[in-house]
Amino acid sequence: MSIRDTFTNPKKRPHTEDDRFSREEVRLANRNHGAMLELLKFDVTPTGGHYLLNHFDVPVLEAGTYSLELKGAFANPTSLSLAEIMARPDVTIPVTMECAGNGRAGVHPRSCSMPWMYEAVGTSAWTGTPLKPIIEEAAPLAEVVEISFIGADFGFDKATPHYFGRALTLKQIAELDVLLVWAMNDQPLLPQHGAPLRIIVPGWYGMASVKWLTEIEALTEPYQGFQQVETYRLRNDEDDPGRPVGPIRVKSLMVPPGVPDWLTRRRHVESGPVEITGRAWSGDGVPVAKVEFGVGDNWIEADVTPGSGPFAWSGWRVIWDAEPGEHILRCRATDADGQVQPIDAVWDLSGFANNAVQEVEVFVS
Amino acid sequence: MSIRDTFTNPKKRPHTEDDRFSREEVRLANRNHGAMLELLKFDVTPTGGHYLLNHFDVPVLEAGTYSLELKGAFANPTSLSLAEIMARPDVTIPVTMECAGNGRAGVHPRSCSMPWMYEAVGTSAWTGTPLKPIIEEAAPLAEVVEISFIGADFGFDKATPHYFGRALTLKQIAELDVLLVWAMNDQPLLPQHGAPLRIIVPGWYGMASVKWLTEIEALTEPYQGFQQVETYRLRNDEDDPGRPVGPIRVKSLMVPPGVPDWLTRRRHVESGPVEITGRAWSGDGVPVAKVEFGVGDNWIEADVTPGSGPFAWSGWRVIWDAEPGEHILRCRATDADGQVQPIDAVWDLSGFANNAVQEVEVFVS
Repeated sequence: MSIRDTFTNPKKRPHTEDDRFSREEVRLANRNHGAMLELLKFDVTPTGGHYLLNHFDVPVLEAGTYSLELKGAFANPTSLSLAEIMARPDVTIPVTMECAGNGRAGVHPRSCSMPWMYEAVGTSAWTGTPLKPIIEEAAPLAEVVEISFIGADFGFDKATPHYFGRALTLKQIAELDVLLVWAMNDQPLLPQHGAPLRIIVPGWYGMASVKWLTEIEALTEPYQGFQQVETYRLRNDEDDPGRPVGPIRVKSLMVPPGVPDWLTRRRHVESGPVEITGRAWSGDGVPVAKVEFGVGDNWIEADVTPGSGPFAWSGWRVIWDAEPGEHILRCRATDADGQVQPIDAVWDLSGFANNAVQEVEVFVS
Repeated sequence: MSIRDTFTNPKKRPHTEDDRFSREEVRLANRNHGAMLELLKFDVTPTGGHYLLNHFDVPVLEAGTYSLELKGAFANPTSLSLAEIMARPDVTIPVTMECAGNGRAGVHPRSCSMPWMYEAVGTSAWTGTPLKPIIEEAAPLAEVVEISFIGADFGFDKATPHYFGRALTLKQIAELDVLLVWAMNDQPLLPQHGAPLRIIVPGWYGMASVKWLTEIEALTEPYQGFQQVETYRLRNDEDDPGRPVGPIRVKSLMVPPGVPDWLTRRRHVESGPVEITGRAWSGDGVPVAKVEFGVGDNWIEADVTPGSGPFAWSGWRVIWDAEPGEHILRCRATDADGQVQPIDAVWDLSGFANNAVQEVEVFVS
């Protein structure tokens, strides 16, 4: 087997319906984008390299006239300008964010939506102010059960018109370190990342981190917004009411070693000792306990370097003695709660929260 | 026809092989990315919103140790540090760049590569120093016919290993305002856009603007690099040696009006007067002469606002009196040389330089 053979005639997987993607899926893939996996080398993903998934059009909001309305069942409803929010105590924290649909293209049969493989992840340094004191100052009434967060992005999904919105319980707001954020990697938020203000819910999948935030409402009944009750639920079938998607599941990715073939992204690696590096993370601030690197059925434990904060991915590294031939490389993380990545995708109707191990095809010579 | 009908049962185009995309194409689409078309509202595309097409892995080069080698048939071969290059006279110019493969997914049958539809375009403010004086100081020998530009990005294409490289003739270098660029939108180049130094060839498709530039070589024979002679050629069939892809063809895009359906990106527009805006550009600094907006077979001329520089896209605007029903909206630009966008894609084996008119499906109620 030569390089010419392997790169011009790669082993074809059976050509199933799963290997055929629709024009709708590709249109979404051209529009949204994942990280280039080699950018996993960076502790903080370069701006523009962070994954991006926008449901509707990017709304263009003017920072000068922007205001955030706190309304509903608050004792002190209020409206805050961007300047008032930015004058509050600020923090900058690195947060690893992953799309709930990351890995969807690996779930069989595949749900027709954004066809992510492994790349819908990134770590940014987010600057903002804690949400909790703002909610406390607005003083939710005793009967409040949830707080909703509504963005300025509007559109249709399954023929239902709505602004993108999500909600958290007061308990979640007390326990999660939610921020109101105006800067990313020391620069003002870019329009496509939620300018001028968004929320960041560390440790949760990205759908919770509402962009272009315009309204916070105190609710006395659970929020019934489309993005809360119709999507972002783990379901076995169409009749399953499902369970909400929330914290990120434990996951790891490697920087694909060697050099790529342009079209197939298969890799050529020179034989001998090869440094393999990557990232691993879990949800809700649970640390990564272990990362294993696998070649075929042979797994070895990697050195893990903790992330630069409780919500930032860890680094990992291993030396692989690459032998000539074709190999499938894998990596597998375990978190401090004992959760382990599965080898095969766990079924979900919408392809959410697939944390199956990454596979990288390499040819060593 | 209600919104529910149109967004849950959109008219399906015949399900042909052209509507089935492969896993290789989707992997490239997840990795590379186009502009979100609503970002065409901005004269300068927000950073991270500019299209990105990288053939191989992003190389990580250190600005501090970076050097650019000028070698080959120069009387004064030299090596320049980034500081030396940045100490030269600098200019900042807005340049509209488009991928040569933009529109590939609209050419039938489709070449298997990055499946761009309309979105592989963007305008950035690039800061750098003119290339021409640097070449003149290095003094190409009399027998020099071309200058090659080699990047640090390495990989395989059709089983051929190579660094990404391109070449220009001395005449092209004299006539095109080529820059050596270190900043984009007033920020240092991002890793994925070619840090620390790239070239920008204004008015040409993006493949000419080599990223991660490490070598400039004076050649006494035409450059035979893979990306010059094997790809980026307009060809009718596999046996056609082809003609090189060069200047951008005249093109226009509209900001899709109204609001989108998440999955299909079809639009809902309210009836009555609707402002339609967009961009238009051509190659080699040729101005845009006319933009027409079409609904069905009815075309009206738009107001055109010249771009902020000879290589930056123009803006255009028209008021459309939207009547209830389903419509296909189109736009069509003509440049000062009389070149007009075709309604249907012009055949090319690789799907290069497809400047057929954009189509946007809308439902008005």
